[in-house]
Amino acid sequence: MNVVQKYGGTSLENIEKIRAVAKHIASFRKEGDGIVIVASAMGKTTNELVAMAKELGEDVPKRELDALLATGEQKAVALLAIALQNLGVPAVSMTGFQSGFITTEHHSRARIKEINTERTEQFLKEGKVVVLAGFQGINEDGDITTLGRGGSDTTAVAIAAQLGWDCEIYTDVDAIFTTDPKIYPDAKKLDRITYDEMMELSSTGAAVLETRSVEIAKKYNVKIYIGKSLETDKRKGTYVMNDSIFIEEMPVTGISISDDCSIYSLRGMENDGVAIAKLFQLLADLHINVDMISKQTYGDNKCTISFSCTDEQAKDLDKAIENHEILSEIMVEKQPNLSILSLVGVGMATATGVAGKVFSILAKEGIMYYQITTSEISISVTVNRDEKIKAVIALCEAFGL
Amino acid sequence: MNVVQKYGGTSLENIEKIRAVAKHIASFRKEGDGIVIVASAMGKTTNELVAMAKELGEDVPKRELDALLATGEQKAVALLAIALQNLGVPAVSMTGFQSGFITTEHHSRARIKEINTERTEQFLKEGKVVVLAGFQGINEDGDITTLGRGGSDTTAVAIAAQLGWDCEIYTDVDAIFTTDPKIYPDAKKLDRITYDEMMELSSTGAAVLETRSVEIAKKYNVKIYIGKSLETDKRKGTYVMNDSIFIEEMPVTGISISDDCSIYSLRGMENDGVAIAKLFQLLADLHINVDMISKQTYGDNKCTISFSCTDEQAKDLDKAIENHEILSEIMVEKQPNLSILSLVGVGMATATGVAGKVFSILAKEGIMYYQITTSEISISVTVNRDEKIKAVIALCEAFGL
Repeated sequence: MNVVQKYGGTSLENIEKIRAVAKHIASFRKEGDGIVIVASAMGKTTNELVAMAKELGEDVPKRELDALLATGEQKAVALLAIALQNLGVPAVSMTGFQSGFITTEHHSRARIKEINTERTEQFLKEGKVVVLAGFQGINEDGDITTLGRGGSDTTAVAIAAQLGWDCEIYTDVDAIFTTDPKIYPDAKKLDRITYDEMMELSSTGAAVLETRSVEIAKKYNVKIYIGKSLETDKRKGTYVMNDSIFIEEMPVTGISISDDCSIYSLRGMENDGVAIAKLFQLLADLHINVDMISKQTYGDNKCTISFSCTDEQAKDLDKAIENHEILSEIMVEKQPNLSILSLVGVGMATATGVAGKVFSILAKEGIMYYQITTSEISISVTVNRDEKIKAVIALCEAFGL
Repeated sequence: MNVVQKYGGTSLENIEKIRAVAKHIASFRKEGDGIVIVASAMGKTTNELVAMAKELGEDVPKRELDALLATGEQKAVALLAIALQNLGVPAVSMTGFQSGFITTEHHSRARIKEINTERTEQFLKEGKVVVLAGFQGINEDGDITTLGRGGSDTTAVAIAAQLGWDCEIYTDVDAIFTTDPKIYPDAKKLDRITYDEMMELSSTGAAVLETRSVEIAKKYNVKIYIGKSLETDKRKGTYVMNDSIFIEEMPVTGISISDDCSIYSLRGMENDGVAIAKLFQLLADLHINVDMISKQTYGDNKCTISFSCTDEQAKDLDKAIENHEILSEIMVEKQPNLSILSLVGVGMATATGVAGKVFSILAKEGIMYYQITTSEISISVTVNRDEKIKAVIALCEAFGL
């Protein structure tokens, strides 16, 4: 069977664990199988490298940071290839530039433009397990880039899409659950989930799989399996695939929880579109993908724009607004320490009354909620972080999660 | 002033030292200077990486080891570039593949075939300090290679040759001495030394500068300065250059000491050239550059071949001889735990009686010596390792070193 497998940092955090992953690969590999392994950096390596860079000063140039961080995955893949060879499994490691991951020029959050799999396919033809460094690529200037948060998942799904193979993501959680079991211990394990549901869940804080990788999986119809590292019983994990039949009777499949949220409200902006365009240009320049956005118009052609971003982006944004020719004139309100709860389910598209039910549950519990956004298959509300757990429990119980 | 500077691992072993090197560079850099910095891996990184690889098994595949080791220098250059930028010095890091170091295919001891300095020169033109990862390159398959022991020196001298600049090698010793001051505390510091002398010294164990880098320096007439990291007084170091006038009155400039030596004697080989050719083919296949070689013929068309190699090479060689169709039949004697003492001096080419003087000093001290080789400017003898110090002291005193 041909497969792409991705192993996260906790599965590779020391030599013993690297050897265990190699043994696992050796145990299921059969003659003629095509196997591509995507590895993250060992354990907390990435955080340690970032900390070293920050010791040198607060402003870390992103080109250099990418070159620095890329060493983490390169080290992991070389060691994993050595471990495999020592078990008699022919294997080669490949960095981002060797595996032909050509990306956009944006350092620290580059997007994959194309993958030249020529060398990878040559190695596969020679019967070798190809161990690819996740998270990294190279831009057209020949500079090392990284793909941002969850980048190794993106690497894995993208190479699976290119090869037309299935993708298995091994991590430190058992599967995808209806919500975070740490917050709601009765959360149920999902056998399957659709791409759209997974995207809604992951874009709003369920860190198991990054949105971008699910987007690619959906676009190229890559079947993803998510499970615990070294667990061989596939019934214990979750499949992410294009199939919604199995959950039609349930409007809500899961609830994701994101703690990293601040809401900005810019009041008294001109409603002529110019100021709004400037604002979104600024956000684009800062590479801030705002999540929830709302606009309310009021008299005298004024409006209020509200949007959410992460706490780290908020830092960049505060500085940028301060120095901005137009936006510095506007009243900016910031509401930090919020959590976003997102109820997700493809069944929502056909079920009615889900939003009403959510609001009445929250009202009954006396929980304040702020920004609300909806999509065809999700409803997201922001609540104060200290009321998060109360809200999750109430919603899970009400929707049978 | 345009200059290539190389900093060794001990000069970069932690964030504090990296910042100190960056400050040093910032302090001497003037507008318009072209500065290329070559960095080794931080502190003992390379040894640590090798140890990790060996934990996975004794047979470490060299392609993967090179990919693993290359992360050490990549990490160092990224951090140094970050440190420079934080001091307001525009700087970019470059790995071996980015800086166009194209090498032969031999992993772990690749040789530089060409250097495409296009990007380096572009960055220099933009006024940036270019921080190159030493020790690494890329072969024509796109695989990461390393240049072997002292490879970062080779990187530095090679890029200096290509740019036509001087090269400064900063290390943890003050200068080049007539012999190792740890063994002979009265050893004298050399202000200048010729390429040929330096090559003889370094090929026989004075680890300050690897032979290959001196070869390149000689070929392209690159002036090298060797000094202690962060020391600004150039009078304290040693220049390696093409000038022999200054030592004509002294036949011996220095003595190098190498402890890493085993001597093999293969007795009873056929003297028809076939077996000898097989032996040297085997040595070439194992990439063993034998140092001292001698051959003695005796009756019945038999001969004995003796040669020296390092202890690590000896391990490879023992295994290879054992499995070799012809050589496994031959009586192999191995003499481990030897030291090579090499007396070096361009003055030797014109002075007479140096060899005789060496042998009579050793005889007077009752020191056994074995293999002897000579070149135009050197005499090397092997002695038992436990008589090394006694021999060095006697020779230094006799030749006024």
